[in-house]
Amino acid sequence: MKLNPASSQDSAEYQERVRESFSRQGFMKHIGATITELVAGKAELRARLREELTQQHGYFHAGVSATMADVACGYAAYTLMTEGSSVLTVEFKINLIAPAKGEELIARARVVRSGKTLKICNADVYARNGADETHCATMLATIMCLAGKSDNPG
Amino acid sequence: MKLNPASSQDSAEYQERVRESFSRQGFMKHIGATITELVAGKAELRARLREELTQQHGYFHAGVSATMADVACGYAAYTLMTEGSSVLTVEFKINLIAPAKGEELIARARVVRSGKTLKICNADVYARNGADETHCATMLATIMCLAGKSDNPG
Amino acid sequence: MKLNPASSQDSAEYQERVRESFSRQGFMKHIGATITELVAGKAELRARLREELTQQHGYFHAGVSATMADVACGYAAYTLMTEGSSVLTVEFKINLIAPAKGEELIARARVVRSGKTLKICNADVYARNGADETHCATMLATIMCLAGKSDNPG
Amino acid sequence: MKLNPASSQDSAEYQERVRESFSRQGFMKHIGATITELVAGKAELRARLREELTQQHGYFHAGVSATMADVACGYAAYTLMTEGSSVLTVEFKINLIAPAKGEELIARARVVRSGKTLKICNADVYARNGADETHCATMLATIMCLAGKSDNPG
Repeated sequence: MKLNPASSQDSAEYQERVRESFSRQGFMKHIGATITELVAGKAELRARLREELTQQHGYFHAGVSATMADVACGYAAYTLMTEGSSVLTVEFKINLIAPAKGEELIARARVVRSGKTLKICNADVYARNGADETHCATMLATIMCLAGKSDNPG
Repeated sequence: MKLNPASSQDSAEYQERVRESFSRQGFMKHIGATITELVAGKAELRARLREELTQQHGYFHAGVSATMADVACGYAAYTLMTEGSSVLTVEFKINLIAPAKGEELIARARVVRSGKTLKICNADVYARNGADETHCATMLATIMCLAGKSDNPG
Repeated sequence: MKLNPASSQDSAEYQERVRESFSRQGFMKHIGATITELVAGKAELRARLREELTQQHGYFHAGVSATMADVACGYAAYTLMTEGSSVLTVEFKINLIAPAKGEELIARARVVRSGKTLKICNADVYARNGADETHCATMLATIMCLAGKSDNPG
Repeated sequence: MKLNPASSQDSAEYQERVRESFSRQGFMKHIGATITELVAGKAELRARLREELTQQHGYFHAGVSATMADVACGYAAYTLMTEGSSVLTVEFKINLIAPAKGEELIARARVVRSGKTLKICNADVYARNGADETHCATMLATIMCLAGKSDNPG
């Protein structure tokens, strides 16, 4: 993908816009996820294991992996949208390839194709134990830009 | 799909097995989801809107829709598995077709094809407002049966 | 899905527009597929088994099922688009649920959600033997309307 | 993914097994596709543009991209299966990200996760014009190994 090099001013713009939108997602707070990396076309989210995030065997729930990968895709795409636009997930597909067994879950997303209306993204999810990361899920998502409809109020 | 008519004893068996597995999912408790229907090859889950489940515009988060639809698919499939087997989501794809704006979210799943190892399921998600239900998402999922590896401990 | 009842004039319009577009698809001719039903929001395609359409065991190739289901989704969606617009598949997901063993392959598609820009469709594929139909694949697809860019030349 | 280094004898085994299976796919012959690379966990297929492979605008049909990507995934996975086993596509999802406009279509697949029963693969499709390749589609697929059921007769 060719991305125009964002000037530092542009960067400041999307940094604030993404983080403001993220901060209003009650479900991200409930999961305890934070944005740990954000550059043009890329986003990383992390959450620590708690009993509240588990499935029946005590690992991270597939729903947590899917949610974090989706949000990472959405915000990776949102970095490439213009001010005053809104971000929307059209659809995603996720393959769960290993048990999400670890102390921290990491979702890393990138834009594969940046069209005007649609951004195609993929994300990989890793369960971290100390310095080891296990690749536990992979996602392919279609994200939509709603121009002229801000994601943020006020 | 042809399902063998389950005797009432069989029914009691999977009812208990599914509910026991569900009760150990910390993330379902965190979301506040409950199983509101469970028959052979079908499952329904519901959750009430709370701020903890929202995205940036105050509706149910896509991650909640995806999680509940996935779990509904998993347990719809699990009703058709034998005792002592374990249930695993291989992958799913979800299309988010309308804002999940409502007081309650309902995920209804059914098994489309019941193979020995793989069960293909679909689920539809509805946002309920009073008596009105809005169809807000649709999922297609592949669920795996791990024979001889119980989902429940003890 | 709520569809506005199309007047017979509207019907004539999309019938011609879809069939004209279909006739220019060299790959449909190569497969030997024909449109066997077309109403607002729905399309059915059929093809007869030939050795040219087989996989390694002599059944219809998964690629034939996927192609016909995708085209059926595209034209089901295209019936709901306006004159002078163009149809484009954004993405699709297909589950192959039984061997496509039969003398004829049938793909039946319908629009699940008709947005202005995106139409979400599903399709089911059946292998017919005499009067018996085996459900062999199911698809969920996202179709895009490119307004002001005609699908047909001239 | 960790792949055991295949000895040259192993390599000869899967090379022959894959090519024998491929040669019996009537649809691959009909499309004019050939295997242009095959190593453990990876496969590449190519086909030249002909009118028989086009959609309504004269580019490669999405069905050709999907079919070639699926077959590339299947055989990438099949290199990692044992003799006497059979390969089956469970499901795939494809995003069509640019018009497949070129003189040749190239599908490159690799195994992302190699489980005993299921192999998760992705594939990218490129349309080549001279020395330029345009990335036109990306696929995520689930491939199944049917042990003790040979893909090839005789």
